[in-house]
Amino acid sequence: MEPAKAGHRIALDCMGGDMGPSEAVAAVALALKDGLVGPDDRITLVGNEEVLRLLAREHRFRPGGRVDIHPAAGIVLPDDAPMGVLKGKKDASMLVALELLREGKVDAVVSTGNTKVLVGAGTIRLRTMEGAERPALAAIMPRRQGHFVLLDVGANPEATPEHLVHNAVMGRVYAQSALGIAEPRVGLLTVGTEEGKGGARINRTHEALKAMGDRVRYVGPVEGFDVFGDVCDVVVTDGFTGNIIIKTLEGLVYMVRDMVGPKVRYNPVYLAGGIAMFPLLRELKGHLKPERYGGAPLLGLNGIVMKAHGSSNRHGIASAIRLGREALEAGAGRRMREELAAANAVMAGLPPA
Amino acid sequence: MEPAKAGHRIALDCMGGDMGPSEAVAAVALALKDGLVGPDDRITLVGNEEVLRLLAREHRFRPGGRVDIHPAAGIVLPDDAPMGVLKGKKDASMLVALELLREGKVDAVVSTGNTKVLVGAGTIRLRTMEGAERPALAAIMPRRQGHFVLLDVGANPEATPEHLVHNAVMGRVYAQSALGIAEPRVGLLTVGTEEGKGGARINRTHEALKAMGDRVRYVGPVEGFDVFGDVCDVVVTDGFTGNIIIKTLEGLVYMVRDMVGPKVRYNPVYLAGGIAMFPLLRELKGHLKPERYGGAPLLGLNGIVMKAHGSSNRHGIASAIRLGREALEAGAGRRMREELAAANAVMAGLPPA
Repeated sequence: MEPAKAGHRIALDCMGGDMGPSEAVAAVALALKDGLVGPDDRITLVGNEEVLRLLAREHRFRPGGRVDIHPAAGIVLPDDAPMGVLKGKKDASMLVALELLREGKVDAVVSTGNTKVLVGAGTIRLRTMEGAERPALAAIMPRRQGHFVLLDVGANPEATPEHLVHNAVMGRVYAQSALGIAEPRVGLLTVGTEEGKGGARINRTHEALKAMGDRVRYVGPVEGFDVFGDVCDVVVTDGFTGNIIIKTLEGLVYMVRDMVGPKVRYNPVYLAGGIAMFPLLRELKGHLKPERYGGAPLLGLNGIVMKAHGSSNRHGIASAIRLGREALEAGAGRRMREELAAANAVMAGLPPA
Repeated sequence: MEPAKAGHRIALDCMGGDMGPSEAVAAVALALKDGLVGPDDRITLVGNEEVLRLLAREHRFRPGGRVDIHPAAGIVLPDDAPMGVLKGKKDASMLVALELLREGKVDAVVSTGNTKVLVGAGTIRLRTMEGAERPALAAIMPRRQGHFVLLDVGANPEATPEHLVHNAVMGRVYAQSALGIAEPRVGLLTVGTEEGKGGARINRTHEALKAMGDRVRYVGPVEGFDVFGDVCDVVVTDGFTGNIIIKTLEGLVYMVRDMVGPKVRYNPVYLAGGIAMFPLLRELKGHLKPERYGGAPLLGLNGIVMKAHGSSNRHGIASAIRLGREALEAGAGRRMREELAAANAVMAGLPPA
């Protein structure tokens, strides 16, 4: 007889987001209401006990139900550095949530807090999973049709070819659970698609990915303008390039919005035009689904850690909870360890660089 | 008594652009008409002699005037690789134009041709200028107010700290001539602005730029979303990251255009809105001035080489001619050599990494 399915246990760091713990708790209510978590799953709110009790009561979470509270007095601030937090803020909600994961008391952590601290403290406390050397942050990005996974967007700025191959296999497993693509196509981001461009590091990675054969559906090198086309579902890069890409793209979007916005608001002709365009913008936003994919997992650690944008509202946080739960449901951790082992075996068999 | 000012001599590779030699020759007519080149300057059209003679006659360039023709039978194609061209296409218009520059028969080359071949063949034929080890492609990008120089956008993907410092001083001199900023602010693109982020290569570059003191108005590390703000006028990065940035941004712009365009065209409500928005879009385009800054110089070679986008129309090519002429007028080559020597002296005095 099989044991009764225990469900997944997710800890939510409620104190790190720009919108505060009330939005985090509202996200949990939303996740329960919309069925983003299963009936057997449990969510642990981590943070200031009094505040969380009050909020839990507001949302009518019953004691002993699917939501419980784990107290943590401290808060990680946006300017905190990882080492300072690890030494001086052991009671911070983010560290307490990571500790619950390390001790096996939960299966995943979701946090809207300081990315640098989450990456640094997560890596030190949880350690990298067997077969991986460094973690990678994986963002889900919109493209013409659907979405793609871009990784690493900032965890490991100095990636070796081995790290890039690890990013490829971890990103592939994540794209399976998050995007529901059975056999995601993997591309290696570089500056020219012919072999021999992009430097020794890219060439070595390219050779290793080719050598993976059927284990990775590798489509080869891809360039910057390919990523928004229907070329591949996982775009592999280092944490330096990936972080600069997402921040530059975000910067461009904000610049255009700031240039257009005030003019549309104060000019009656533009305003009329803007109102006529509104359904289109809404449709565009619906297609891009920023809130459906509001979390970026820190892949390659012992345990699922989801980073949600600091400015996330309840929908963004609920989406991060959903993505974390889907990764657990798909057994992403176990599958990544298997794929990492296979990738390392292939790399060990390659002739020296 | 001073010698009579001889003017600047610019060779235009007429055969490499997507729109063909007629657009290149039309660009020259435009540059003359709009005074983008001075009365003493001369432009040499390089390419198929018969075609160019016909086009020159159409535009009524008189023989012995400011425009002459230098024949070149071959053409560099978009898929050509640098070594193949250097070995097998010695008569290609791009190579012939570079040869005129190498022999001192012209002062600058403008080409719309294959970037990889221009970088590769330019570096091998002209060699890097004294004090520089690698060339860098410098693009002019729009920001909220005005423009900034981003370099390297693709010439040298594997930049060392020395190369990045060279990019900083060359970009500074170019921003002076191209953007007319007396003392451009220089920022180093990275993934976190606190010291110690971004890896050893960025830290070493950061230390060297700080050690430059008053020679470079260095504002420190900048992140991806800073570049569109009013933080710095020269953004320094390696050719791998820079190339991926410009191609990703271009990809995003095209994606949004492709998603919005057809809907606006075929839906009467959107169409009305789109027409109302048209003056705003035109204003936005005027602010971004894509055609005013249609050329990216390949800095660090012995001679000014301007790369114009392959899809450039006459306005884009004329802009590249103007930018090349302004760099010549400002003595950019001499000034870069001076600044490179000073930077190398500062770096030689730094404690070993």
